Amino acid sequence: MKLKNLIGDRFKERPSDCVIDSHAFTVKGGYIKYVANGIYSLFPPMKKITAKIENIIREEMDAAGSQEVLFPVVLPASLWEESGRFTSVGEELLRFKDRNGSQMVLGMTHEEAAVQLVKEYGQTYTKYPFSIYQIQTKFRDEARPRAGLIRVREFTMKDAYSFHTSQEDLEKYYDVMANAYFRIFERAGIPEVVSVKSDSGMIGGSVSHEYMLLTDAGEDSIVLCDDCGYSANMEAAETKVDNSGCSGISELKKVYTPECKTIEEVCTYLNSPVEESCKAVMYQKNMDDEYVIVFLRGDYEVNETKLTNYLGEKVHPAVITEDCGIVAGFCGPYDQKAKCTILYDKSLEGINSLCCGANEENYHYTGLNIKRDIGDVEYIDLSKIQTGGICPCCGKKTIRISRGIEVGNIFQLGTKYSKTMGMTYTDEDGSVKTPIMGCYGIGVGRLAAAVCEVMHDDYGPIWPITIAPWHVHLCCMRVDKPECKETADKIYKELEKAGIDVIYDDRNVRPGVMFADADLLGVPVRINVGPKNLANGDVELLTRDKKVSKLVKAENIIEETKTLISDLFEEINSKVRDRIDVEI
Amino acid sequence: MKLKNLIGDRFKERPSDCVIDSHAFTVKGGYIKYVANGIYSLFPPMKKITAKIENIIREEMDAAGSQEVLFPVVLPASLWEESGRFTSVGEELLRFKDRNGSQMVLGMTHEEAAVQLVKEYGQTYTKYPFSIYQIQTKFRDEARPRAGLIRVREFTMKDAYSFHTSQEDLEKYYDVMANAYFRIFERAGIPEVVSVKSDSGMIGGSVSHEYMLLTDAGEDSIVLCDDCGYSANMEAAETKVDNSGCSGISELKKVYTPECKTIEEVCTYLNSPVEESCKAVMYQKNMDDEYVIVFLRGDYEVNETKLTNYLGEKVHPAVITEDCGIVAGFCGPYDQKAKCTILYDKSLEGINSLCCGANEENYHYTGLNIKRDIGDVEYIDLSKIQTGGICPCCGKKTIRISRGIEVGNIFQLGTKYSKTMGMTYTDEDGSVKTPIMGCYGIGVGRLAAAVCEVMHDDYGPIWPITIAPWHVHLCCMRVDKPECKETADKIYKELEKAGIDVIYDDRNVRPGVMFADADLLGVPVRINVGPKNLANGDVELLTRDKKVSKLVKAENIIEETKTLISDLFEEINSKVRDRIDVEI
Repeated sequence: MKLKNLIGDRFKERPSDCVIDSHAFTVKGGYIKYVANGIYSLFPPMKKITAKIENIIREEMDAAGSQEVLFPVVLPASLWEESGRFTSVGEELLRFKDRNGSQMVLGMTHEEAAVQLVKEYGQTYTKYPFSIYQIQTKFRDEARPRAGLIRVREFTMKDAYSFHTSQEDLEKYYDVMANAYFRIFERAGIPEVVSVKSDSGMIGGSVSHEYMLLTDAGEDSIVLCDDCGYSANMEAAETKVDNSGCSGISELKKVYTPECKTIEEVCTYLNSPVEESCKAVMYQKNMDDEYVIVFLRGDYEVNETKLTNYLGEKVHPAVITEDCGIVAGFCGPYDQKAKCTILYDKSLEGINSLCCGANEENYHYTGLNIKRDIGDVEYIDLSKIQTGGICPCCGKKTIRISRGIEVGNIFQLGTKYSKTMGMTYTDEDGSVKTPIMGCYGIGVGRLAAAVCEVMHDDYGPIWPITIAPWHVHLCCMRVDKPECKETADKIYKELEKAGIDVIYDDRNVRPGVMFADADLLGVPVRINVGPKNLANGDVELLTRDKKVSKLVKAENIIEETKTLISDLFEEINSKVRDRIDVEI
Repeated sequence: MKLKNLIGDRFKERPSDCVIDSHAFTVKGGYIKYVANGIYSLFPPMKKITAKIENIIREEMDAAGSQEVLFPVVLPASLWEESGRFTSVGEELLRFKDRNGSQMVLGMTHEEAAVQLVKEYGQTYTKYPFSIYQIQTKFRDEARPRAGLIRVREFTMKDAYSFHTSQEDLEKYYDVMANAYFRIFERAGIPEVVSVKSDSGMIGGSVSHEYMLLTDAGEDSIVLCDDCGYSANMEAAETKVDNSGCSGISELKKVYTPECKTIEEVCTYLNSPVEESCKAVMYQKNMDDEYVIVFLRGDYEVNETKLTNYLGEKVHPAVITEDCGIVAGFCGPYDQKAKCTILYDKSLEGINSLCCGANEENYHYTGLNIKRDIGDVEYIDLSKIQTGGICPCCGKKTIRISRGIEVGNIFQLGTKYSKTMGMTYTDEDGSVKTPIMGCYGIGVGRLAAAVCEVMHDDYGPIWPITIAPWHVHLCCMRVDKPECKETADKIYKELEKAGIDVIYDDRNVRPGVMFADADLLGVPVRINVGPKNLANGDVELLTRDKKVSKLVKAENIIEETKTLISDLFEEINSKVRDRIDVEI
């Protein structure tokens, strides 16, 4: 098509409300249009990109033996009541009533709908295993949508659901899907994606993995060990602490610590190492406002997801009132009189002598020995793992924390949904059993934005050829020069005839404007037809990433372009791992 | 793929709640699954069919110069407030509040979103004309969803929007789209679709057309003239009545008509022709309950859409109270004392002497002459056109009323949305103008169901090859006979290698079960591999519609199948009209 007909505006200025580059480029490049908080329309270039991503996903899902279906966006609340999620999921589940007063929800994930669809089909063991997927609009009423297509409220998602008669069979298929996921990201041009063990959150299940694209713009923290290859998200990474080198036992002593409210102030005042201090972090349970105090080593932080998972309910930072019994700034485990849940983090385990609050204004204790002074307590893993910390896998102090964008996730669900929703099958021996499920998601728009986030320069996206809106961007540098226009027109027609996906800029604008637009559209191959080179019979053939830039005889340009395109495909496809063959 | 792995159940019994055949077959054939009132999930075969329909639509829209975009399903109410539709559209617009209390709606059509997307782009005349489309989920909270995918609440729709600088340009493009629509239906295998002039309803605009597939199962009535080719829907067809042969003028006389409450009873009692009677039909306006009396010829019926359009507001059948002043059963235009809007239908025009109610219990008038006894009144077209009535186009008494399913519609919107939403462009002469719009819709699922409705036999759908879930259905009649299984397996592999879309039934079931399933899946080409024919080296090649049925040497089956498939495509494609070339 011709660029002058392309719907959408491109502009020069970086939009002031865009924090990350992919957001800025997709707005100023005419890819997306803000409609409401976390809700966007897609202009043609982004629609083309997402369609190509969807096709890659579709091919890989089909190859993994999954069958495409379509679930509704609007679901009856009764389905979510069956699974228990109608009450257990928070405000991100959008609930409303239809004209007849029936309670409905907007699908944010489709486990319930998947079980409802195949409940009758899966009544006998001979049908297992089987797998279904859809590519469909979802709505999640996020509290804080941000960063363009990275975190939105409405999004297109591929979600797959598999059904099995044994945990082993699920695990086998889980590996097939994991492989398909890596292939999808590799084919989309981002082989740098790592899979990390993760917390299952509101989806449920025991084992789950997130696929993270490592980039500083990511909103998630990922725990990596460069030595053994261990990876996990922050919630799933067990924090191991080595307290072997700490001081010996000493006497419990109350000391005057005026104005020392933070653990750092106390340690500095007492000239005592922060590694031998015990700080308190206070929460309240959302349900009944009961106080929860977490004691942990002074230099560690609470991971609230670990805490929530341990408690089995949500918490918020505590509001310390006069009558709650907690002495803010001086809270400690010894002689603690407040009515509350008290938890000890693993980071305190094995320390002989601790400095901690004395539950009295301006006083701390030194020399606290938990076993001697308080008794046997359970140490729980509630703190955040730190850079340089101990790898829970190989035991070396090699932990590195990176930022990443989650581009996919897979879950071993167990029987959470099949059981609550009463899905059963008759096994070979006649016994009635509950199938075991897996589920597998990829956000299409987020994946597009994530690719842009890691594949761009200062001027715009550098789309991988596999998902680029067009393969070739043809620029006629001087439409006012007949020989220039005629050559460019001819190349355009021949490229189209050869079945090459081309966008043609034949506007009468300055080269600067033309190149700025081309950079913003990020098409991998560019052909510039200009009067200077044409005087020698040449046109310019180059790649968006500048790795290729050469002059080609105009009569050879179609062949050379074809070769370049196929080289670019080959460059990506050569990095794609082999498919795991499945018979499902 | 193998049939034994196909997700979804097929069963023998016609579901008791299915009135029309397409509904019954899509349920018992494992195509769709009921989730909630008017909401379905799609099993793989229907997903395949709709995907093929979407591709046909996409090709035709692209060829018509329309560019694919994507609008959100969830829209801010503010957009609908701008256009005025937030209040003007009834309960079918689903409204709700998000977690922050913002009023939102579920997109049932996207005129507002389209204007919002291109408002900045379309600021100068040089950008015009342009056209955008999407294929997206929509939700319309229908009061009475019915008939499977024919009338649902959630559905996938292609909706396109075009923008123009003149009415002529819109009309030119309207023709291009009309042509594309016919091509879509022809390619989908239903060349019998007719386009009818229609009422624009809540979408608005002046000129609009519906594409109707004629079938008795349709829920719409279509007015056709076989003589001149005129077609319209009931609302849009002007009712012409010939009263030239009526009696002469006579005296106004009050007569006693005991117990005669209907116009038929009165005419029988008085032995007077119903063609010279005047009946009253009473309504009340929804807004303020004001009464509206429509007087019309005794043998005609009120078309409520015509009435609503004339009044500019909605009405409901009147509730006659004691103090409203209307004498039910004896209501007439002469000496009518009730406070209400009185309307005269065109069917009364030119009748010299009418029998009508006397506004007094048990009395009627005869000999009413409206001009003489009441004065000059305006005659308005408010009644339903009838079979055998006068064609508004050619004037002959050739009107025929058919039933049909609406499979698409196109609208000339004018400036309804661009004006209310403040979209403007600067014209060549510097003046600021409002663009003129068109919009164009096709329901994907309904189209699939409509094809099934006209293309089936007693045993299941007969899918046109262009949209069939698979091209070939291969049956191995006796998997227990090695030569049979080996031959069928080999044919399966070779068909797949040849890139033919095949479903293979290698289950160990009776031929009856196998054939019943094949009929329900409606795949156009079938290959039966059975021991009897195989003894002679033959396999059976046939079409679902039974037009082809022959024995083919097993070694020639791949070539013969290819030829048959291409013949079936050719049969459909030969009926597709030429594309109108557009440069947009």
